[in-house]
Amino acid sequence: MGRWEPDARGRLERAALELFVEQGFSATTVPQITARAGLTTRTFFRHFADKREVLYAGDEVAARARRLLEEAPPGLDAVAVVEQGLQRVAAERFDGRRDEVRQRRDLVRAEATLRERDAQKRADLVGVIRPALEARGTDAVEAALVAELAVVVLHVALDAWLDAPDERPLGAYMTDCFRRLRGVLDDPADGSAGPRVQEQAARF
Amino acid sequence: MGRWEPDARGRLERAALELFVEQGFSATTVPQITARAGLTTRTFFRHFADKREVLYAGDEVAARARRLLEEAPPGLDAVAVVEQGLQRVAAERFDGRRDEVRQRRDLVRAEATLRERDAQKRADLVGVIRPALEARGTDAVEAALVAELAVVVLHVALDAWLDAPDERPLGAYMTDCFRRLRGVLDDPADGSAGPRVQEQAARF
Repeated sequence: MGRWEPDARGRLERAALELFVEQGFSATTVPQITARAGLTTRTFFRHFADKREVLYAGDEVAARARRLLEEAPPGLDAVAVVEQGLQRVAAERFDGRRDEVRQRRDLVRAEATLRERDAQKRADLVGVIRPALEARGTDAVEAALVAELAVVVLHVALDAWLDAPDERPLGAYMTDCFRRLRGVLDDPADGSAGPRVQEQAARF
Repeated sequence: MGRWEPDARGRLERAALELFVEQGFSATTVPQITARAGLTTRTFFRHFADKREVLYAGDEVAARARRLLEEAPPGLDAVAVVEQGLQRVAAERFDGRRDEVRQRRDLVRAEATLRERDAQKRADLVGVIRPALEARGTDAVEAALVAELAVVVLHVALDAWLDAPDERPLGAYMTDCFRRLRGVLDDPADGSAGPRVQEQAARF
């Protein structure tokens, strides 16, 4: 990544997104992307494994998650770590880029091969967060649950943000998601399914 | 699926799992599976789209989830619906089959192509549960969160159950997961991040 290729990665991402939107994902080739970006195919493959990866900025989200988890103060509990990490990701990576993120989402929704990669990226992100929480002392099951929760909130909040008519920042949708999760799980006082649910369940 | 092929689907599933374990997933072909099961390739493709699908019993889990959601009494709230649905799936589909389920999981973990399909199956299952909850009157964001939560608990509980040295049924691990989710999210009284988290976050 020498000085003769300033922001090669960003140029490739923008060129790819433009071409995918203009002519469709399957019709777009890597040489077309590199031509639009004014770069070589060799440069493309130095940054991305394939045509799909360019929509995910390589492993940028996973790398960022790993860094946020390493930087989190040791005293913070697992849910607080992911809540704060998500707020930073929202502010630093998503806010102000809603149109571009929406284009990307619409492309992924329309292509089976991208949906499959998307699902895999989610699993990969859980696979980054979970061991990092375990390394902080969270036990295995709780680390798995909280890592999954982080990825759920990221995706549900992203969708709500992209579909919203207003201009609230993504972080506000994340806060809503955690609040609503607390609300729906709040039923019982003792942490079990609670008498109302058990009574209803008897008829189920 | 005529009478001349009793339990064709089950025979194909068992033959495939045996062969995958014996000689690896990539080395196993559909003709080998059908030969082992004493059935034709045509029968295989009547039940499964490809070699990977045979590990997922086609769309059985999604179909079962759809049925459970349709059968749930209208008064039950969204979390109760998925908690009870998961308990039934645990009892009817998983308990008593731990060795077989563990073999399947180990295969999936070892093969990138299976991990990708697994991630896609999870997304598909969310895609079944979410609209079914919306059809019951749950709003879109809550339906998305609860559907995701159901799939998280299914997978985290399955892993805990498969790794456990004891013989507790899968449903007990699911109950544990919901209890722990309530525990980790329980921090604040007012549904917001709470003063302790906010104070810690200031240093983050």
